[in-house]
Amino acid sequence: MKGDDCGPFVFHIVKHGFKILDIGGPCCYCLLMEMNAARTAQGQKTLPAKYYTSQEVFQEEMEKVFPRKWICVGHVSQVPEAGSYFLREVCGENMLVTRDPQGKVHSFYNLCRHRGTRLCTEATGTFSGRIQCPYHAWTYALDGRLIGVPNMAGVQNFNMAEYPLHYVPTTVWEGLIFVNLSMHPESFADTFAPIRDRFSEWQMDHLKLAHQIVYEIQANWKLIFQNYSECYHCPTVHPLLASLTPYKSSTNHLDEGPFLGGPMQLGGETESMTVDGRACALPIESLCGDNRKLVHYYTLFPSMFLTLHPDYVMVHRVEPQTPDRTRVTCEWFFHPEAMANPHFNAMPAVEFWDITNREDWHVSELSQQGISSRAYQPGPYADLESLLAAFDREYLRTME
Amino acid sequence: MKGDDCGPFVFHIVKHGFKILDIGGPCCYCLLMEMNAARTAQGQKTLPAKYYTSQEVFQEEMEKVFPRKWICVGHVSQVPEAGSYFLREVCGENMLVTRDPQGKVHSFYNLCRHRGTRLCTEATGTFSGRIQCPYHAWTYALDGRLIGVPNMAGVQNFNMAEYPLHYVPTTVWEGLIFVNLSMHPESFADTFAPIRDRFSEWQMDHLKLAHQIVYEIQANWKLIFQNYSECYHCPTVHPLLASLTPYKSSTNHLDEGPFLGGPMQLGGETESMTVDGRACALPIESLCGDNRKLVHYYTLFPSMFLTLHPDYVMVHRVEPQTPDRTRVTCEWFFHPEAMANPHFNAMPAVEFWDITNREDWHVSELSQQGISSRAYQPGPYADLESLLAAFDREYLRTME
Amino acid sequence: MKGDDCGPFVFHIVKHGFKILDIGGPCCYCLLMEMNAARTAQGQKTLPAKYYTSQEVFQEEMEKVFPRKWICVGHVSQVPEAGSYFLREVCGENMLVTRDPQGKVHSFYNLCRHRGTRLCTEATGTFSGRIQCPYHAWTYALDGRLIGVPNMAGVQNFNMAEYPLHYVPTTVWEGLIFVNLSMHPESFADTFAPIRDRFSEWQMDHLKLAHQIVYEIQANWKLIFQNYSECYHCPTVHPLLASLTPYKSSTNHLDEGPFLGGPMQLGGETESMTVDGRACALPIESLCGDNRKLVHYYTLFPSMFLTLHPDYVMVHRVEPQTPDRTRVTCEWFFHPEAMANPHFNAMPAVEFWDITNREDWHVSELSQQGISSRAYQPGPYADLESLLAAFDREYLRTME
Repeated sequence: MKGDDCGPFVFHIVKHGFKILDIGGPCCYCLLMEMNAARTAQGQKTLPAKYYTSQEVFQEEMEKVFPRKWICVGHVSQVPEAGSYFLREVCGENMLVTRDPQGKVHSFYNLCRHRGTRLCTEATGTFSGRIQCPYHAWTYALDGRLIGVPNMAGVQNFNMAEYPLHYVPTTVWEGLIFVNLSMHPESFADTFAPIRDRFSEWQMDHLKLAHQIVYEIQANWKLIFQNYSECYHCPTVHPLLASLTPYKSSTNHLDEGPFLGGPMQLGGETESMTVDGRACALPIESLCGDNRKLVHYYTLFPSMFLTLHPDYVMVHRVEPQTPDRTRVTCEWFFHPEAMANPHFNAMPAVEFWDITNREDWHVSELSQQGISSRAYQPGPYADLESLLAAFDREYLRTME
Repeated sequence: MKGDDCGPFVFHIVKHGFKILDIGGPCCYCLLMEMNAARTAQGQKTLPAKYYTSQEVFQEEMEKVFPRKWICVGHVSQVPEAGSYFLREVCGENMLVTRDPQGKVHSFYNLCRHRGTRLCTEATGTFSGRIQCPYHAWTYALDGRLIGVPNMAGVQNFNMAEYPLHYVPTTVWEGLIFVNLSMHPESFADTFAPIRDRFSEWQMDHLKLAHQIVYEIQANWKLIFQNYSECYHCPTVHPLLASLTPYKSSTNHLDEGPFLGGPMQLGGETESMTVDGRACALPIESLCGDNRKLVHYYTLFPSMFLTLHPDYVMVHRVEPQTPDRTRVTCEWFFHPEAMANPHFNAMPAVEFWDITNREDWHVSELSQQGISSRAYQPGPYADLESLLAAFDREYLRTME
Repeated sequence: MKGDDCGPFVFHIVKHGFKILDIGGPCCYCLLMEMNAARTAQGQKTLPAKYYTSQEVFQEEMEKVFPRKWICVGHVSQVPEAGSYFLREVCGENMLVTRDPQGKVHSFYNLCRHRGTRLCTEATGTFSGRIQCPYHAWTYALDGRLIGVPNMAGVQNFNMAEYPLHYVPTTVWEGLIFVNLSMHPESFADTFAPIRDRFSEWQMDHLKLAHQIVYEIQANWKLIFQNYSECYHCPTVHPLLASLTPYKSSTNHLDEGPFLGGPMQLGGETESMTVDGRACALPIESLCGDNRKLVHYYTLFPSMFLTLHPDYVMVHRVEPQTPDRTRVTCEWFFHPEAMANPHFNAMPAVEFWDITNREDWHVSELSQQGISSRAYQPGPYADLESLLAAFDREYLRTME
């Protein structure tokens, strides 16, 4: 972890944080309390109901937020070789993500340039060197060029070069694949500058997918973000989690902008977030000592959460479906060496977060139900909910 | 039953009605025929299709009709003690109805004042003295005051007294609980004046719920009201019912305004409306002799039907869901003394009305289907459908 | 088959076509190739996405296309005697098609003139001489006159003669029953002039229904028409079909206007379109020799396909449900003499087309999915898709 890319205030906290963490014990907890006391929601209240229930607002989000931002669609380990592909819904659009023979990862809209036919319906698979439409056999290279068209010779004004697959800008960062639906996407490097090297210790591009669970939640996507952004609810909602990390033990490294979050301390004997508090694997070797006693929680607006443990990394991809329905895909990544161990078992980590996820979805769904009432009015945020206030500010800036 | 609160014409009929009923026999039937002959639908036709099919009209009803009227949500026997509660949908809003330690019945919108979370999801239950939000443990007294808020000390501008549960005006009449979603509700006493003491003989506040059935019907709520308001269909639709009460044996005590209906004679040996025509219990003790040979049918615009038998009272609560979908909850209430009898059995009454209800829902659904056709035009009411014409007039007045 | 009613160009092809077909063999194939070479989509592209996905366009079709055109609802063999009836959805309207004692086929909107109740819910059946409403027993003759109304004597301004069933103009042509929802329908004779006597050799009014399959397809109705209108997809999509008829062996007798299509040659040993290529029955006796080696494929805008084989006739009735959902009813008709044969078995024909239909629906659904993408743009038609270009022109003319 590098203080260099933090602002002076955050840097100060981090520095002192590490100093205290180095000597450990009750002093550390005291300092955290002090930092928490400085935390403020600035008297902000929750957003008006329309942001959670209105079809018009949702439509606006589908125009102003999701198609303009870099959206995480997966991890490089999901397209291991040339022709490997997976399908992904982004903003209601079906994407085909594949790797070409040069190793480059591409994303295309999943439709043929002839009569618009969806090219591919299996969620994952491997193309044998080319992509062929099942209707009239138009054929494309793995980089999207149209390379075969039966019975089109002599058709008026037809030029193959004009009909490549519709391309989607694609970037790989720390092993994670991001796409952007905009014709003129914002610079990935500029946008991701605040977290560019923040997670490099975890060497995420080397990790491999151990498990995936897809959840369908009857709640607006922002309620899912807001729920992830505070531990004020932990004592009531998460008895197991609260037994592993004291709910006030968090600090916010980033508390404004598209990326929000920071570390939480693992309590007492706890090695990692698992059903028994013991790690599923040795700590990721490249981690410094401090990171072996912390869990890092970050929201990456507007599409994902990144949760980094000593022994594994968890990704939540958040896909809005309707104003009151969200799909969340949760994935657990481990180091391939740990996975090669014959005794390796990811389930204590998977089960812990599956329990915690379901508890979170339940209260998020209850919020969706209550907010849909005509009686709902914005309510006051606690200071422990300062990141929700920051999320709301960033969201409203994007919607302007 | 008191003639005092009837208009002169209705009073005249009632007076003569009872005179004749006192001497019984064929003369009574003749007079009924004569009264029926006087009954007229005034040449009115059925409502245009849009009132049964249009989303816009339904939306208008959800603004002009249901939130401005007193809506029946249940019976006092459903909140027997302090902390007892039940949930109820009214106008798409989830209500929490409970009783405080002083015995007062309250209704609240079912959501927390912090982040809008639905407080309670079990349909019925008992609170242990307080209502606690499952998300962040904000806690309310049974009268709605906010009495506990963790981690809010020092939050800018926060004052607990400003965040009680959202309250809904609630009135109890004859044991029935009514709510009104309006900020400035119409006077319950004024509105219910025409029937204030009409049903006091049944001592409904002492009765207890013996059975409940919930029906989901693919028809507009007004078709359900209209179906209940005439027995012209009885010979075709209800062979069993028609065998217990002659279909032309009804009189209308109230034939204009929000409350419509009157008594029908039980034929020959019939004791009550049950599968075998025999009563399920001794007549309710407080009933006068006439009411032991009559069934009273009333519609209470816009939310319920009240059917009073010699031995039991039946309530239909009508809840519009969409233009073409209605939920009806049918409840059977008996005197607690009758229910205490070890041989007590409500099923002959329940089964009789369940059969009759299903026959009614079926033809109501057929009407919904036909009215949805572009060919539908308003058709002529028979004079036996005079109460439907009156219902339509009251409805249109409310929608103005 | 008569060339007289074709335009000069088409006549020329047909004439030569038959000359060549008379001598058979490879020369025939060559000429077909030549004719195919003359075929052109005129550089047209597929329709913009809104025509397949927009609720507004669909609504417009439900006003401008389907209620103004003659829509096929069935075959005379489906109302064999007086009182026989079947129900049919047309344009979201439920129709009751029946035959009166004089043998005339009538169509009515399926609702009572009293309170709009749907009269009849069984898909097919036989009335015992009259149609009675199940709600209040209003009764109609088989020609639609109101002939019985209980309890309406003395109702103000009521006159039975004013309340017949709502009538729908109905025509029988070649045994097929067509209805028109317009108050002032276009002349059936004028509209159907281009194909009036074209199929008389098949004596369709004598055929009988052998089998029916109803399909629900997640695709716009026009994609179903377009799919039927070309065999460019046959090599990729229909391995079995392509083995029975060479995919380029078609000619277009009619290539502009509401009726489009022409014959395709049965290859080599093929007797008919069946799972094994052998006929299910002797050729329909009245067929000339040429028609015993051809299959004729016609689209009748906007409601049906007619496929005429040597031994049977197949009808597809196409019923749009929503922009992206279509019901198709496929029916197989044989000569009653063939069906009287104890060894008669329609299944080789039924199974062949069921396989082929499902292959077609699958690619049509893939097209619907792809066209719904924001990336979709109209793509270039191949010249083998000339009839799709003609269909699009006719469709756009109708929508003007």
